Amino acid sequence: MFLCRHEIVGIVIQLGNNVKKFKMGDRVGVGVLVGSCKTCETCQQDLENYCPSMIFTYNSTSQDGTRTYGGYSDIVVVDQRYVLRIPDNLPSDAAAPLLCAGITVYSPMKYYGMTEPGKHLGVAGLGGLGHVAVKFGKAFGLKVTVISTSPNKEDEAINKLGADSFLVSTNPEKVQAALGTMDYIIDTVSAIHSLAPLLAMLKLNGKLITVGLPDKPLELPIFPLVMGRKLIGGSDIGGIKETQEMLDFCAKHNITADIELIQMDYINTAMKRLSKSDVKYRFVIDVANSLSQ
Amino acid sequence: MFLCRHEIVGIVIQLGNNVKKFKMGDRVGVGVLVGSCKTCETCQQDLENYCPSMIFTYNSTSQDGTRTYGGYSDIVVVDQRYVLRIPDNLPSDAAAPLLCAGITVYSPMKYYGMTEPGKHLGVAGLGGLGHVAVKFGKAFGLKVTVISTSPNKEDEAINKLGADSFLVSTNPEKVQAALGTMDYIIDTVSAIHSLAPLLAMLKLNGKLITVGLPDKPLELPIFPLVMGRKLIGGSDIGGIKETQEMLDFCAKHNITADIELIQMDYINTAMKRLSKSDVKYRFVIDVANSLSQ
Repeated sequence: MFLCRHEIVGIVIQLGNNVKKFKMGDRVGVGVLVGSCKTCETCQQDLENYCPSMIFTYNSTSQDGTRTYGGYSDIVVVDQRYVLRIPDNLPSDAAAPLLCAGITVYSPMKYYGMTEPGKHLGVAGLGGLGHVAVKFGKAFGLKVTVISTSPNKEDEAINKLGADSFLVSTNPEKVQAALGTMDYIIDTVSAIHSLAPLLAMLKLNGKLITVGLPDKPLELPIFPLVMGRKLIGGSDIGGIKETQEMLDFCAKHNITADIELIQMDYINTAMKRLSKSDVKYRFVIDVANSLSQ
Repeated sequence: MFLCRHEIVGIVIQLGNNVKKFKMGDRVGVGVLVGSCKTCETCQQDLENYCPSMIFTYNSTSQDGTRTYGGYSDIVVVDQRYVLRIPDNLPSDAAAPLLCAGITVYSPMKYYGMTEPGKHLGVAGLGGLGHVAVKFGKAFGLKVTVISTSPNKEDEAINKLGADSFLVSTNPEKVQAALGTMDYIIDTVSAIHSLAPLLAMLKLNGKLITVGLPDKPLELPIFPLVMGRKLIGGSDIGGIKETQEMLDFCAKHNITADIELIQMDYINTAMKRLSKSDVKYRFVIDVANSLSQ
């Protein structure tokens, strides 16, 4: 059973000679990376995700020169260093997206110090990353506001995901009322968008962390950064040690991704729906057809 | 004797009834701010410089409704809270620019943790702010590289200011060699400029702090921010407590600004030279004609 391209959960069915971290039958996960140099400063600091020789789980070149193909297969062979333990109380399908979407928002929340209980977190964009960020925010004891262009996501954000409030970013009055009210914002939006309103929503010393990847530069007004001692930071997934910490945190707080489990023969329909953002919030493929039996 | 518009040094010649912080004859300084609400959260945290009711030293409105006119006068009346003590070993004229230029670069270096000995600081722009940043960098034990568009500043940067190296930002080979080498950059440039090369010069976890004030938004590429866990932060002068700390730090490390002392009747010539950046690095006016006697 393997789910998703680089958010993969499965069972250990074979062990290399030197594997000590896992045993046969363990339920394990593989995220975005399956290799790194292991010797550079970043690898030594458990930041393999920033290793210049990092090997992606798909469309990358392995140490042996073969191409990596990700999780769309019955089996995958991965160095134990890059394999995660899935805690017992997390279901395989809903845990899978934690391995990329989950760690991508968890890691910056820890690194940039966005976990102080009672502080106010804005989550810009309510998709695969954003909906998990809302759950982490609540688990850290934050007040969470979802910032979205889609008014129809309000009910979902508040009543299903547990956000404290919802802000339609195209409503000038709502935006005006939110100015200077947030301590942190996680910006998960990959479309070209304006940073100015997000910066304006931050308090003094506020932090805007971008984890989306717009393919063109965004406009950055410098005045609000200077006048409010604000910062814009980036972050890319997380190291293996921190990914395990995140999974254990999820186990403790019963956090999983909201997913729609599909079979492989549904994939073309799923792709069409995906292009219309018609999924809450991740399609997870039951590749081995083992979860829906 | 008062020097500069909002980088003012003088002697106490009269005391209000409740003044305990100073006595007659003390040598004191006034920087960018002469008032704030004193009661808000930022004032309580000694961050009067971010108080929404902050009163600027010039072109601002005092609590009594009168306009503030800055330091171009024989006397100025200022609430003791916003007055700094000038340490004995700092000359009045060369200490004056510390009250704005100095604190503007000192404060972010402390706030963003850019003081770890042995780390590599880039200083973009070598003017009033940049040249003091070089001196602070060396006093903190950093390796300092000046990043400038002007090749003719190299000798000055290294032999006079003590920078370790000099990088002409228009030289592609020099820029290429500097990629990924810096831990921090202080960007003092107020002209519209590209952030991408500066971001590229930073190592993983690098910090680019902007204290210049470009009047239009800059282009911010998001990829380098995300892939290198880098941040762009702003900062605006500093609070009174920290400004005093900075002055005492300067006294300990013999740091002053490089200035050219002028008389009031030279002001029109100075303005012309200023428009051609023909000053190293601040004109300081001997308003009361007391320093050059």
